[in-house]
Amino acid sequence: MFEFIFVIQTFFYNHYNFLTSMNIILASTSTIFGGEYLEYLREELIQLYKGIDEIIFVPFARPGGISHDDYTAKARSFFETLNIKVKGLHEFDNKTEALHNAQGYFTGGGNTFLLVKTLHEEGLMSVLKENVENGKAYLGCSAGSNIGGQNMKTTNDMPIVYPPSFECMGLVPFNLNPHYLDPNPELKHNGETRETRIREFLTQNDLKVVGLREGNWIRRIGNTITVEGSELTRIFEKGKEPYEIAAGSIV
Amino acid sequence: MFEFIFVIQTFFYNHYNFLTSMNIILASTSTIFGGEYLEYLREELIQLYKGIDEIIFVPFARPGGISHDDYTAKARSFFETLNIKVKGLHEFDNKTEALHNAQGYFTGGGNTFLLVKTLHEEGLMSVLKENVENGKAYLGCSAGSNIGGQNMKTTNDMPIVYPPSFECMGLVPFNLNPHYLDPNPELKHNGETRETRIREFLTQNDLKVVGLREGNWIRRIGNTITVEGSELTRIFEKGKEPYEIAAGSIV
Repeated sequence: MFEFIFVIQTFFYNHYNFLTSMNIILASTSTIFGGEYLEYLREELIQLYKGIDEIIFVPFARPGGISHDDYTAKARSFFETLNIKVKGLHEFDNKTEALHNAQGYFTGGGNTFLLVKTLHEEGLMSVLKENVENGKAYLGCSAGSNIGGQNMKTTNDMPIVYPPSFECMGLVPFNLNPHYLDPNPELKHNGETRETRIREFLTQNDLKVVGLREGNWIRRIGNTITVEGSELTRIFEKGKEPYEIAAGSIV
Repeated sequence: MFEFIFVIQTFFYNHYNFLTSMNIILASTSTIFGGEYLEYLREELIQLYKGIDEIIFVPFARPGGISHDDYTAKARSFFETLNIKVKGLHEFDNKTEALHNAQGYFTGGGNTFLLVKTLHEEGLMSVLKENVENGKAYLGCSAGSNIGGQNMKTTNDMPIVYPPSFECMGLVPFNLNPHYLDPNPELKHNGETRETRIREFLTQNDLKVVGLREGNWIRRIGNTITVEGSELTRIFEKGKEPYEIAAGSIV
């Protein structure tokens, strides 16, 4: 009887947690044109990380030009202004334990292939997913947002390394295309437009794609997922014409 | 003694073949802005396919919008004007045999991930490579050129499917970036430029990358590999600043 009650309690606890506690921002970019790093998200980040005084920064998308230490320092200097301390995940010998012990997370942009390869090879994708699904705050920008989708098959990045899988955390029931860019009719070039590429994805996959223009982000609070930001958001679904939704809309 | 002579003969024959008979065009695009399909390559294709009256077209890069039959018909209508018949590789039950029996090849553009996945899964990448290395004429455009490089890690395409490997035919000792595009200083957008992406590739790989602007192609005749076409070609190597070479230059 006690055992039965425990099982029921555990079920409701997990279920309740899963249904209500996710707290996520997936942003198109860290920096809008002419702005400072993360500045346009400041008010949102105060809400996201409410009650938290330290987060772990995941710098693994960065393929060069700047070290993991320097990249972490960049995030640190912004979050200091919110009184939030930042530790780089690369600093820990036991990264799994570090993720389990963290209060919240921020994954920066760079190359999605490199990020996904590193997270899978070190067994960290599932650890991060578990903690975020259990309610710990998560911010992703660009590549860090791609890994919040079902898989990385709608990234814009160059496949500079071969990941063991394209599967991601699936924190939302769709895929993202960050830095979504409208076609430029003046371009005398035969490379595919972003819209053509996403339509090609839909010939091979039946999964909604959210085209996030710069300045926009996905906000998940519990079971409610909305698009936010200064621009309309373009949605692609198999068998439908792409359509636009306004900030604040459920997606 | 006879056996020894046979071994030596075979060695020289294979070596001779390998050293001297490759006959390849890897083009940035099939169609230059304002032009007709393959028209800008007409004189080159007459040379490439000299003495050949039938080629196999590989349509597998095409992810939709146009069927393999329709895509093959498009190639066929151009090659009719050169008195060359075109068969689609998708038409054959035994595709390996079809490749071995062919006189020459043309692989069209589309999505490199889909092309590479299909060729690897059907065991055709190595068969095509073997035949082209033994001297059969090969034309690639865009994705069809990417597979002539060492691997597909410098494609511009979206990873809409997961190939079992990124390795390609290695018909040239470098990688290609077709549709190479110079940065647009007017773009108010934080997505990476093409140059940034290729520099990121070089942080993870030590392999030359040939940035092929539209209108340009790689020509391999035997052991001589040159860049050709109307534009300069941009070369990227690890530890060097990118540099430009003129049409006719050895690469």
